Amino acid sequence: MKIDGTPFRSIWRAGETVRIIDQRWLPHEVRVVALSDRAAFATAIRDMWVRGAPLIGATAAYGMAVALRADASDSALDDHWQVLHATRPTAINLRWALDRMRAALAPLPAADRAAAALALADAIADEDVELNRQIGLHGLALIKAIAARKGGRVNILTHCNAGWPATVDWGTATSPIYHAHNAGIDVHVWVDETRPRNQGAQITAWELNAHGVPHSLIVDNAGGHLMQHGQVDMVIVGTDRTTANGDVCNKIGTYLKALAARANGVPFYVALPSPTIDWRVKDGVAEIPIEERSPAEVTHVQGLDPEGRIVQVRISPTGTGAANPAFDVTPATLVTGLITERGVCAANPSALRAMFPDLAP
Amino acid sequence: MKIDGTPFRSIWRAGETVRIIDQRWLPHEVRVVALSDRAAFATAIRDMWVRGAPLIGATAAYGMAVALRADASDSALDDHWQVLHATRPTAINLRWALDRMRAALAPLPAADRAAAALALADAIADEDVELNRQIGLHGLALIKAIAARKGGRVNILTHCNAGWPATVDWGTATSPIYHAHNAGIDVHVWVDETRPRNQGAQITAWELNAHGVPHSLIVDNAGGHLMQHGQVDMVIVGTDRTTANGDVCNKIGTYLKALAARANGVPFYVALPSPTIDWRVKDGVAEIPIEERSPAEVTHVQGLDPEGRIVQVRISPTGTGAANPAFDVTPATLVTGLITERGVCAANPSALRAMFPDLAP
Repeated sequence: MKIDGTPFRSIWRAGETVRIIDQRWLPHEVRVVALSDRAAFATAIRDMWVRGAPLIGATAAYGMAVALRADASDSALDDHWQVLHATRPTAINLRWALDRMRAALAPLPAADRAAAALALADAIADEDVELNRQIGLHGLALIKAIAARKGGRVNILTHCNAGWPATVDWGTATSPIYHAHNAGIDVHVWVDETRPRNQGAQITAWELNAHGVPHSLIVDNAGGHLMQHGQVDMVIVGTDRTTANGDVCNKIGTYLKALAARANGVPFYVALPSPTIDWRVKDGVAEIPIEERSPAEVTHVQGLDPEGRIVQVRISPTGTGAANPAFDVTPATLVTGLITERGVCAANPSALRAMFPDLAP
Repeated sequence: MKIDGTPFRSIWRAGETVRIIDQRWLPHEVRVVALSDRAAFATAIRDMWVRGAPLIGATAAYGMAVALRADASDSALDDHWQVLHATRPTAINLRWALDRMRAALAPLPAADRAAAALALADAIADEDVELNRQIGLHGLALIKAIAARKGGRVNILTHCNAGWPATVDWGTATSPIYHAHNAGIDVHVWVDETRPRNQGAQITAWELNAHGVPHSLIVDNAGGHLMQHGQVDMVIVGTDRTTANGDVCNKIGTYLKALAARANGVPFYVALPSPTIDWRVKDGVAEIPIEERSPAEVTHVQGLDPEGRIVQVRISPTGTGAANPAFDVTPATLVTGLITERGVCAANPSALRAMFPDLAP
């Protein structure tokens, strides 16, 4: 997508130099940094200069390619895998990308590995872009239908960030929006700020602003009222995990928006690439353990102070504890449809199985 | 209620000196200030050192009493009314208290007015305390019943601040909670932070902490997940306006919690003194205009910075606008019961009329 008119990806290379946006400073600064050795890639992943499963995977792939330039021996290949994997060991995409790189590179002569690795990293990045582009095209058809039926502006509400900076390009939930905007459809996005980490205010608002998509920031409390008054035409969110039943685990607060959408007849869509479907899990509410994160995310907020410094301020009294469940599960019954790279399907076991007969167990 | 073991009201006098807590610095500082002349009272109301309809009314009444000490002539009585009323001209309780003072004092000889005014201001404050105490006793019965049925801790979720600092004492939504805690029932409160102004994090968390009621701060997004997992036994919120049909206008986000409560079988109660019933309005969603407040409340957050200063930080990019509807309406069908000073009644026109035959038109 574009930043002030210039096309960007979240990771890219110029010749042999790999660059990323250090996302820790968004929305206040766009810091582009070059990652020139293995240590730099490890730091960028571990310290969350990059975030979002697809982008983490692509960054690890490029990290392996750059590391092999310095040492492409068999032992180094294993060592690079270990070092890069240790940065965020629970990230599924990280391991997937590193396994794929090692499996493809190990059979090659050491001298050929670095060049082959760079080509494969490019391919992994391009595949993510294509997956998200397909999601966008299927979502675009839904937006077009609403625009045709309604006439005038289409108001789309989204929660958290499932945007291009979380992927290599397009994003998942944002891909239909960018496709619609680029196609000249008048879309306007209600951006939930998404407490506690404010990914909506910090990332989604930033990327829509940078690309020029009309949007308004709202507090997470506002969506119900807006839906009650006909100001939301559809909801599109991303997901961290979708169950075989079509239950959707996503950022905390998604469930409340799904309830409000149902109560007010607003279609509620979830955009997802098929790798996020967890076919082993059926009942998301009963089976998915919800990560409890640091209370400091609730008691403190990050922002730009009057002197232009990025600081954390405390909003609550000392002595008050906080609970911080990071995700919630929206039952499939509240989901209008799942926007996947193969098309839109209903959120139920048979529809999911029919869409992905080759993936379903 | 108590602050670290010492009983407090939100406004009180020691002899002829009237004191308040300057609430602008909560939860980070408890600044008690004496208001010694009319100008001080006007500043305290206008600049929101005090907030909450009942407290604003009581403060205006004491302001009139203190002003009459300086000048109790007929023309001064009118002048005091004008100056104090102009501080927050749309506050209904402010006008109600000032009208009541003037009507009672005007017939008296000027020399008797100051003493009578002080006694009447005391009476207005005491009446508010008694109203809230009655709400608390009726709510206590509900909590007792849950405790008896469930055994163990009763988890109560509240949104925004309808606590004692918004009234003279007890609060409305918090009064049942304080009564239960003081009666030895094991209650724990989930405190919604209540973006955008964070009255939950700043005031509700502070007062529960100060009185010693177990509580946990949560983001506004978390309540649905907690209800889905049986961690909320009841919801109690306050209200700015209740319609003759039982629709409830309260801080933005209340509606989302009511939807989640209904979906998960959690009782949803609203605590209100009868003066907040607006008998002229029936359909709250259709008829109540919702105040749109400054976008800066959404784009900025107030807190304590690492150097101990209270500052505003910006959380969103420049160029991103914000929408800020301040209230929403929860339809009566989602409300389990209204906790009033006369008892608990269903949220429907006939039940409200039966509870308040003398007030209903």
